[in-house]
Parts: sequence; C-alpha cells; structure tokens
Amino acid sequence: MTSSNHENAAGPLMRLWGKIGGFALKLKKLGKDDPRRIIHSFKMGLALTLVSIFYYFKPLYEGFGLAAMWAILTVVVVFEFTVGSTLGRGLNRMLATLTAAALGVGAHRLATLSGETGEPILIAVFVFIMAGIVTFLRFIPKIKARYDYGMLIFLLTFCLISVSGYRDEEVIEMAFERLSTIVIGSCTSVIVCIFICPVWIGVDLHNQIATNIEKLGNFLEGYGEEYFKVSEEGQPRDKSSILDGYKSVLSSSSKEETMANLARWEPRHGKFRFRHPWKQYLKVGSVTRQCAFKIEALNSYLISEIQSPPEVRNIIQEASTAVSSECGKALKELASALRKMTKSSAAEPHIANSKDAAENLKSVIRSSLSKHDDVLQIIPAGAVASLLCEVVKCTEEIADATHKLASLAHFKNAKPKVTPEQKELPSQGIVLPVSGIDGMHHVITINEPSQSLQENRNLPPAMAPRMEV
Amino acid sequence: MTSSNHENAAGPLMRLWGKIGGFALKLKKLGKDDPRRIIHSFKMGLALTLVSIFYYFKPLYEGFGLAAMWAILTVVVVFEFTVGSTLGRGLNRMLATLTAAALGVGAHRLATLSGETGEPILIAVFVFIMAGIVTFLRFIPKIKARYDYGMLIFLLTFCLISVSGYRDEEVIEMAFERLSTIVIGSCTSVIVCIFICPVWIGVDLHNQIATNIEKLGNFLEGYGEEYFKVSEEGQPRDKSSILDGYKSVLSSSSKEETMANLARWEPRHGKFRFRHPWKQYLKVGSVTRQCAFKIEALNSYLISEIQSPPEVRNIIQEASTAVSSECGKALKELASALRKMTKSSAAEPHIANSKDAAENLKSVIRSSLSKHDDVLQIIPAGAVASLLCEVVKCTEEIADATHKLASLAHFKNAKPKVTPEQKELPSQGIVLPVSGIDGMHHVITINEPSQSLQENRNLPPAMAPRMEV
Repeated sequence: MTSSNHENAAGPLMRLWGKIGGFALKLKKLGKDDPRRIIHSFKMGLALTLVSIFYYFKPLYEGFGLAAMWAILTVVVVFEFTVGSTLGRGLNRMLATLTAAALGVGAHRLATLSGETGEPILIAVFVFIMAGIVTFLRFIPKIKARYDYGMLIFLLTFCLISVSGYRDEEVIEMAFERLSTIVIGSCTSVIVCIFICPVWIGVDLHNQIATNIEKLGNFLEGYGEEYFKVSEEGQPRDKSSILDGYKSVLSSSSKEETMANLARWEPRHGKFRFRHPWKQYLKVGSVTRQCAFKIEALNSYLISEIQSPPEVRNIIQEASTAVSSECGKALKELASALRKMTKSSAAEPHIANSKDAAENLKSVIRSSLSKHDDVLQIIPAGAVASLLCEVVKCTEEIADATHKLASLAHFKNAKPKVTPEQKELPSQGIVLPVSGIDGMHHVITINEPSQSLQENRNLPPAMAPRMEV
Repeated sequence: MTSSNHENAAGPLMRLWGKIGGFALKLKKLGKDDPRRIIHSFKMGLALTLVSIFYYFKPLYEGFGLAAMWAILTVVVVFEFTVGSTLGRGLNRMLATLTAAALGVGAHRLATLSGETGEPILIAVFVFIMAGIVTFLRFIPKIKARYDYGMLIFLLTFCLISVSGYRDEEVIEMAFERLSTIVIGSCTSVIVCIFICPVWIGVDLHNQIATNIEKLGNFLEGYGEEYFKVSEEGQPRDKSSILDGYKSVLSSSSKEETMANLARWEPRHGKFRFRHPWKQYLKVGSVTRQCAFKIEALNSYLISEIQSPPEVRNIIQEASTAVSSECGKALKELASALRKMTKSSAAEPHIANSKDAAENLKSVIRSSLSKHDDVLQIIPAGAVASLLCEVVKCTEEIADATHKLASLAHFKNAKPKVTPEQKELPSQGIVLPVSGIDGMHHVITINEPSQSLQENRNLPPAMAPRMEV
C-alpha cells in the first residue's frame, strides 16, 4: 500500500522529470548529429550582441536614434544557418530597401503635390496598386525561387516610407536611416556568418549529391548477396536493413533545388569557384534519382512474397551478383571522385565489367533459365535480371553526368592509379572520359597543366561574390 | 540594304518589345492557371490600405504614434496566400510577441537593478544566451515545422524590448504599443484572408491527394492500350504522352507535409471540421506514392528499347489490359468519392475484378507463355504482368487508406448505387468496408444517422479555431 502511495505521489513528478530528460537527450542528439548547429547558435548570439552595441555607445545612438532597432531586427531576420542563405537574404533586403525607399520618397512627393485632401487618397491608391503588383509578381516561379524575400521587403519599405510620410515630414531622412541601419545589420550578419566557421550550402549540396550516389552504390554492392541470401533462407529479410539508405534519394528533388538556388549567392570558397556549375549538380541529382527508382523496384523483389524458388535463382546468382556489385563499385568510385573534387576514370573499368556481366547474365538466362517449365517461377528472377541491366544503363548516365560536372567545374586530375594499360599516360594530363559511337567510354588525354585554374585562384576577392545582384 | 538597316535599327526595340510581350503572356498564364492569385493580390492591396488608415485618422495615430508602422509591417509579413499560412503566422507572431515582450520587460528590470555600468553588460549577456537558446531550438524538426516563425519573432521582440530599454525608459509602454499594433495587423490580415474569397490550404491538400490518385488511375486505364499499341507499331511511343501525369506524384511528399502542417491552423470550414484527420491524408499520400513508384517501373517498360515481341505480348494482352483498367477504374472511383467527401464502396467491385483478372493473368502466363523457347523475350512481358499484380495490391492499400480517412473524417454516405446485391441495404446506413481474414473486402452496414456530425456542426464558432496555440 505504502509503496503504491509513494508511486502515486512521485508519479507526475517522475513523469515530468522523464519528459525533461527525454527532451534534453533529443537536444543532445541534435547537437551531436551536426555540431555546426551549436556553433551557429553561438554565432547568432554574437551577431546580435555586436549589433546591440548601437544602443550602448552614445555617439552611435545619437546618429540613428530609435531607427537603430532596425539593425537588430535585420540581424534576427537575415542571419541564417548557411552563407548562401544569409547572403541571399542580406542582399535581397539591402537592394529592396534601396529601391523601395527611393520609390517611396517619390510617391510621397507626388502625393503632396495634390493638396491636403488628395494626399492620403493618392497614397492609398499607390499602396493598393503596388501591393497588388508585387504580390502577383511573387507568384512567378523564378522570382519566388530567388527574390521572394526581396519582393516582400520592397513592398514593406515602400508602404512604410510612403505612408509614414503623411505624418512625418522628414521622409528622406527616415528613408536614409532605415537604409543605413539595414545595411549595418545585413553586413554584421554576413560578416559573422562568413568569417566564423562558415557553413557553405554549396559544400552541403556537393556532399549530398556524392552521398546520394554512394547510397545507391552501397545498395547495389550488397544487393546480390542479400537477394540470394533470402533465397537460401527462403524468407524475406527483415525490413530494417542498412540497404534502405537509398530511400532518402527518392524524395530529394525539392531539397536539392532549394540548395542550388541558395548556393548561387555564395562567393568563391575553397575549391568552389565563382559561377560553379550548380545546375549540373541538379542534373546529376536527377539521373541519380532515376537510378533510385529502378533500385526501389529491385528492392520490392527483396521484400516481395512472390519469389522465384532457390533453384531458379541459383542459375542467375553469379552473373547477377557480378552486375550488381560492379555497378555498385562504379557508383562508389564516382561518388568518391566527386567528393574529392577530382577527375577520375577509376569507375570506367567497373562500368565495362558491369556491361560484360550484363551480357553474360543475358546468355545465362537464354541458355539455362529456358529449361524450366513454370514460367511463373522464372519471371521474378528474370525481372530482377532485366532491372539490373537497366541499372547498368543508369550507372552509365550517372557517370556521364558526373564527368560533365567534373569538366565544367574544372576539377583537378586524380593521381592516376597506374594500371598496366595506363602506364604510358603522362601524369600531368587531364583524363577525360568521352562517349564513343558504340556507347563505350574511351579515355582521352590532354596535356594541359591546370594553369587556368591557378589563374582563377588569384582573382581579387572582390570579383568573387555576386555583388551585381 | 535599306531594309537590312531598318531591321538593325528596329532590332533591339523589337526584341525588347518581344520580351515585354513574352513577360505579359507569362503573367496572363499565371493568372489564368489559378485566378485565385489575382484575387489574392487584390486582397493584399485591400489589407494594406485598411491598415494604413491608422496613419490617416488622427485619433488612431495619436494613440500609437510611430509604433503604428508595426501594423503595416505585420500585414506585409503575415498576409499569405492561404488561410492556414496566414493564421499560423498571425498566431505565431501575436503569441511570440506577447511572451517575448513580458520576458523582455523582466530582463530590463533585472538589468536596471545592477547599476549603470552593469546594465548594458547584463543585457548583452541576456541577449546572447536567449539568442543561442532560441536559435538552437529552431533546429528541432517539430518546432521548425510549426513554430519557426514564432521563435524568430520571439527572439526579435525580446531583443528589441530589452535592448531599447537601455535608452527608452518607458519600456512597458513600448512593449504594449508593439503588441497591440501587431495584434491589429495580424487580425486585419486574418480577417481579410478569411472573409474575402478564402483559400483554404486544407481544401487544396484534399484536392491534391484526390488528384494524385486520379492521375494514377488515368495512367492505369490507358496503360494496357498504350503498351499493346506500342507492340503493334513495333516502336516506343513518343514521350510527351498524357500518361506522364503521374510523374508529379513521385516527388509530392515534402509539399504534402507542408500543406498538412499549415492545414492544422485552419478553423472548421465547409465540410472540413475542427481536428480533421490531416495525418491520414499524409498516409493516403504515402501509399499513393508507393503505387506511383510501381507505375514508374511499368512506364519504363513502355519506353524501353528491349521489348517482348508482339506475339508474346498478344498472349497476355487481354488479361493485362483487364488488370490495368480495373485498377485504374477502382482508383478513379476512390478519387471521385474522396473529392466529393463521401463514403463509397463503388471501387470494391473493380478491386474484386482486378484480383480475378490478376489470377487469370497468372494462369495465362503459366499455360501459354511457357510454350515460348526464348526466355529473354518472355521476361519483359512477364515483368509487366508481375508489376501489374503488385499494382493490384497497391490499389487495395490505397482503398484501405482512403476508407480509413473517410471514417475518421466522418464523410457522409454516397447515395448508394442500387445494385442487385445491395438492394436490401437501408439507404441511411453507413457503409463501412472492412478487411476480412481472407483479404477480401466485405461491406458492413451500421444504422447510425449521422447525428454526431450534425451536433458538431452546431458548435459555437469560437470553439472551432485552435485558439489555444
């Protein structure tokens, strides 16, 4: 009885304690998964503290007065996790404020010409028209993708300046104060964001594309074994397999597009130059997703209840496993070269092997599988085989897309692995994979030291960021 | 010569004119595609004009002074296309301002206790800590999904109030002014958004889920004919077919999640009640997407270069077409019932038919396809057949999910089509499809007049919106 009473009394407290503990664990995991989040939180605190200096130093405060709060507001709104996002918002905000302040002052001047009664009416008409136009323009997909925030701030500033002008005669001074505090806030954000442990969204996109290819590679490397293990044990595998990594690739499209849009705002950094071919990343992402759809179909044969019997599968085991694992190796080579930002032809032999294996698989099917009487039993295994052949094609497409990316982005040569066939290649040459008429890849060597890359590196930093936007 | 000169002179002007024309056409298309966009732009103009009345009427202006600009700012930032989005932002903004203003005043009081030198230091420490905590909390996925804007505004207001307090002694008055103008701005936005041609994101989500199911249905209805037409003509179809509608379903997941998150902010409207089961929409969306992946695989056999020869396909033509078109019909019935918000068992006979057709297809394969010698030629057709059998399963899953949605959302009964078997069912009963042990669907009838629905309808309107957030 007593213990039960104790439990009852301690119950709610314990539960609350348990909830707090669970929440703390969740927070800890959040920080552990990506420690940059913790750094970002400190950076936000720093940026806000820096900008609030405006209020503490009298000379600065006397220059701006109450308008100084716009600087604080700007930092809170503009400071984002990645450089691309912060720069995009900062530039959008500054440019939109500049144009809108000019237009707002103009609208105010025009309105005052029409006398005391006409002024509010005219301003109301201006506000109505401008709000309608800007709101409608925000629906244009291209504008929405990159300038949505700018359009919002444009409308905001235009309304504030033109409407406040009705009560406050010093419109120009107000517009100037607003603009300069916003510039200060935006610059504080951008500087803190770039110079203290910057998070480049371009790098994130680059890594994500490489990781996605790698995930498909992991699946394919493990698929053969997994598929025929199932066949031996005679029951489908449990669903929490590590092979499920590819699933996130299926729905990655919108995230990649957002990242590419933000990456365009970033100046050159590390190996990422100005005008890095972000669009090509989207193309690589798109062919990778196509391959992921095939893999989703392959995966459904892993978990399907209708399976070919072991004796049927055993016939195609060797050839299928070869196709799958060679494709997997090729994809992992491509991913690793992409991650290191090198031009590499290390995937070529694997692709060639996978093609040979696919031909072999077809002849095995033609010769041996035909001997079985029950077509229904052959079909699942046959479908897996034909999907594997399509995966070979997808792998080639991914290889083409990444090679194109490597040449567009002027990736450096990988240190060539000196295989017997390649021994005569000079190590300075750039190895370019080229699709021939027969669809096979040849290796062409161009003796061009990567001088242009070095020259680009020495560009003055002012050239790098897209200040024209 | 002269004409060429003329062309040169007119060239740039003509090109500019052409560009303007192209832009105008784009805008026209944008409005035509969704006329609600034009209405929304007008609404934005109206809301901003309404709120700028603050500046024109002296008594109102004298109450708030310059702080009235916060009302304008709030309208620009809060007013969004859909009711859910506007309400979410408005409530987030108001609640965050309320709590942050209270905390900011408290922080200011605490800081003044520490003397003139200590005050700015203590405030800076408060700002730094609060900025760090709030910024980190924004990474929690659940908070990011629904309260991200609120967290931003909370941080903003806390900093503004506590920092401004250093220069402006009337902190409480400032906090009150800020809060009340933000309430006015938010309420103006919400009222204009709800009472003039409201765009409910819940309705959009509902329609999109139904449309997605319908798209799959369209594909399946047309697939049989298309696949065997290809076989007759001996070449793959052109790629711009209307069958491609399903492709948008593949990447719909993140959009659906955002919509469901926003829909939860919306009060009851039309047939959508308070606590409408938005989560179940996501489940329906998810099984629909699973089916779309199968269809993507089916589609790849339409455009594939490796095809079974016509004589092989002709064997399975009749049975395959039956499976595909029955599944298509079932999905279209489900979509149409969902769109009308009715409980309907009109899809059941089609699902039963598709199962029969799938069994038939299997026996056709077993009996006739086995006679062919070249297994390689059989496999593509066999794979299509086995995919069709999986589509039957997916169709059942979609049916289960939509039926569950119908019962969770208390959809009304469809006027039953009086088929001979159903004649004895009373028309007032609710027809609930239930999965039996054998996997077939039975129809159970419950004689319950939909009174609870009527009762809910009569709830006072104040109960409906989620005012607790």
